[in-house]
Amino acid sequence: MGKNAIGLGVVGLGRAFTLMLPTFTQDERIRLVAGTDPRESARLMFSKDFNANAYSTIDELCADPAVEVVYIASPHQFHAAHVRIAAAAGKHILVEKPLAIDIEDCTAIVNAIDASSVGLIVGHSHSFNGPVLHARRLLQSGEFGAVHMLNSLNYTDFLYRPRRPEELDTRLGGGVVFSQAAHQIDIIRLLGGGLVQSVRACTGQWDPGRPTESAYSALLTFDNGAFASVTYSGYGHYDSDELLGNIGEMGIEKNAAGYGAARKKLAQISSPAAEATLKAAGNYGGANYQFKPANPARFHQHFGHLVVSASNADLRLTPEGVVIYSDEKRYLLPTPKSRVPRAEVIDEVWNVVRDNAAPTHGAAWARATTEVCLAILKSAETGTDIKMQFQVRPS
Amino acid sequence: MGKNAIGLGVVGLGRAFTLMLPTFTQDERIRLVAGTDPRESARLMFSKDFNANAYSTIDELCADPAVEVVYIASPHQFHAAHVRIAAAAGKHILVEKPLAIDIEDCTAIVNAIDASSVGLIVGHSHSFNGPVLHARRLLQSGEFGAVHMLNSLNYTDFLYRPRRPEELDTRLGGGVVFSQAAHQIDIIRLLGGGLVQSVRACTGQWDPGRPTESAYSALLTFDNGAFASVTYSGYGHYDSDELLGNIGEMGIEKNAAGYGAARKKLAQISSPAAEATLKAAGNYGGANYQFKPANPARFHQHFGHLVVSASNADLRLTPEGVVIYSDEKRYLLPTPKSRVPRAEVIDEVWNVVRDNAAPTHGAAWARATTEVCLAILKSAETGTDIKMQFQVRPS
Ligand SMILES: NC(=O)c1ccc[n+]([C@@H]2O[C@H](COP(=O)([O-])OP(=O)(O)OC[C@H]3O[C@@H](n4cnc5c(N)ncnc54)[C@H](O)[C@@H]3O)[C@@H](O)[C@H]2O)c1
Ligand SMILES: NC(=O)c1ccc[n+]([C@@H]2O[C@H](COP(=O)([O-])OP(=O)(O)OC[C@H]3O[C@@H](n4cnc5c(N)ncnc54)[C@H](O)[C@@H]3O)[C@@H](O)[C@H]2O)c1
Repeated sequence: MGKNAIGLGVVGLGRAFTLMLPTFTQDERIRLVAGTDPRESARLMFSKDFNANAYSTIDELCADPAVEVVYIASPHQFHAAHVRIAAAAGKHILVEKPLAIDIEDCTAIVNAIDASSVGLIVGHSHSFNGPVLHARRLLQSGEFGAVHMLNSLNYTDFLYRPRRPEELDTRLGGGVVFSQAAHQIDIIRLLGGGLVQSVRACTGQWDPGRPTESAYSALLTFDNGAFASVTYSGYGHYDSDELLGNIGEMGIEKNAAGYGAARKKLAQISSPAAEATLKAAGNYGGANYQFKPANPARFHQHFGHLVVSASNADLRLTPEGVVIYSDEKRYLLPTPKSRVPRAEVIDEVWNVVRDNAAPTHGAAWARATTEVCLAILKSAETGTDIKMQFQVRPS
Repeated sequence: MGKNAIGLGVVGLGRAFTLMLPTFTQDERIRLVAGTDPRESARLMFSKDFNANAYSTIDELCADPAVEVVYIASPHQFHAAHVRIAAAAGKHILVEKPLAIDIEDCTAIVNAIDASSVGLIVGHSHSFNGPVLHARRLLQSGEFGAVHMLNSLNYTDFLYRPRRPEELDTRLGGGVVFSQAAHQIDIIRLLGGGLVQSVRACTGQWDPGRPTESAYSALLTFDNGAFASVTYSGYGHYDSDELLGNIGEMGIEKNAAGYGAARKKLAQISSPAAEATLKAAGNYGGANYQFKPANPARFHQHFGHLVVSASNADLRLTPEGVVIYSDEKRYLLPTPKSRVPRAEVIDEVWNVVRDNAAPTHGAAWARATTEVCLAILKSAETGTDIKMQFQVRPS
């Protein structure tokens, strides 16, 4: 590969980057050429680890001709501005979910990308998971008939992982709706045909110490008549990974002794600043950081219990693949594993950058997912159905 | 017990009676003294088995002084009329769910019971399951704080079990909303505090050969701020008992080889009449009927995957009891097993009839559950929230 690999510039060397790093270093289609982060320790480590440029600002990074794609993994509230800078510099963009935290910013991004010659992909999100893409292909084949009902639930300890203050402030894009519905709704839209018609939802906020939406249930209708029920809790009690053989979100077996670990660790923290420091310490450039190479993947990443009901079968997504429940029999269709986890993200980046393909997870697609997320918040507030206006089919 | 046992007269010796029979014969607080059914074979068997009176009409049965409680297990569309007859005769009533199939009939029953000296209990329903009552006591203790979110799903083969034609006709009380939401909503209301405020729901109907609602998702709000998401499918594909250790609804381990059995059996049937005959044949008095004594219960009956999120813990109901997911640890609180399955129904009948107690599952309670079921149908039709008017707290 070598010379033909894509030159990637990273904006934000935090948790998301840390999780993507095994992909970037082990997928030969990617070369890390530049990084930027306000944290000096991360910049120093980056330039040393990758013999690459570490800049103090995104503007400098975007001026670097070695950068072909800018991976924007900064906090939510910066996504819109950072996308604008990268697009103006003529760079392709991989931006972490959510695209932005209000619909106007999403639309500005959609328009900026439309008017430019660059491509934009929103990811990683768990809608890139192998079994999700596999289930989509199976449904597209027509073998199982139309999709009628989708049901998804995920109970995690999201709220008690160390957070920056903004992550606990809904106005700044905090809470599970922006962070986690962005995954769950993306998956549901991909499998349900994309065109959500209405959203009715309730949100939960019951730890006064961490006052942001940390649970929700939503009922979505699609224009093709299908409907979906999605539930999420980040309250660190029930763990729905037990429905998936105790395989965690990252496709790695969980240790039962780890129950309650996130809360326990957090209990030792004295202030929001200390908590933000703890978060940063565990990530790239931080005091507790250790590079973990990607496991030879035994299991796929997943996002909880998910069943899609079509005319002739139900499909259940698991860390191994897609289980088909047909009229006569139940059988697993294993999803082939890539050598590198999240290689599906690189597949899409490659197709867009090298083959000029339209992305599946493009700006208009991600605006539609964000529209649903925002509607979850709005419906919970107003107690009514929220009608969608920006929905698109997956391409 | 002997003389003090309650004299029970049974109206409708079909499937529900067949399922309750082990309870009636093995719980010494009950004596079967009379039965009525249009099927002569069932009447003959009944009078022989129990040395009891078998009548051709409910009026004759209600005139029998040995009958203290009338168990109404006739098809849905007869419940209202049968309750009126029994109440007018001064008999206590145990009536199968749903109480009735429209709200006016429910209200007529509530008024009739209020004006009478008899008690009415709606059951069996799975809200009598040991772990449900156990979870209710745990929540009432206050140890776990307020309830905020409930999530319930159940995927079964309900639609493909042999049915009478009315069971596939929504106007006559057919479909999963009348038959199965009656269980699921009753459980959710009992654990959520009873007072549903609004219902938004979608229903699914995707087998043109059996055109009645056979799946739904509903989002309920409660007046205490809690919300619930409930999903049901009776399409005989995914079987959510696999989330419960392959223990079936009746608390009995399932055989994996049984996958698809209901559909396979039904495929041999040529007409709705033949199907109704097949249903009757397997029940009391039918050609294929065999009495099955109650298993010494290893597991409790259940109604799918159910998680209740309270302030300080999530509670998950399983066939063994209630699993508590607290801040620090996960542990099972086993629910003590009764010698006789569904003895909880007889507990409530006994308390009402012998101790003059108010029933938990009384007429006003059951009207409220039926109101939610009707709202599921209505919301799916109108695409709007339906507001509740007849909700009551559990007593
Ligand atoms: N897809 C996933 O699995 C996944 C996982 C975690 C986070 N995320 C997403 O990644 C994004 C970042 O979240 P995170 O958890 O990594 O947060 P984080 O705090 O761990 O990382 C953010 C990084 O951005 C840096 N930063 C702050 N301001 C910046 C700026 N103006 N320019 C450049 N860098 C800046 C911070 O110093 C930090 O290193 C969010 O969009 C989040 O939703 C995705
Ligand atoms: N709680 C449970 O587990 C459970 C299970 C099955 C059914 N049910 C309920 O039981 C009721 C009956 O349903 P089923 O499945 O038993 O139906 P079924 O057809 O098996 O039984 C109904 C019986 O009533 C008889 N019948 C019909 N008309 C009658 C009349 N006018 N007077 C007296 N008897 C009459 C029929 O001949 C039949 O024997 C329904 O309310 C249903 O929801 C409850």
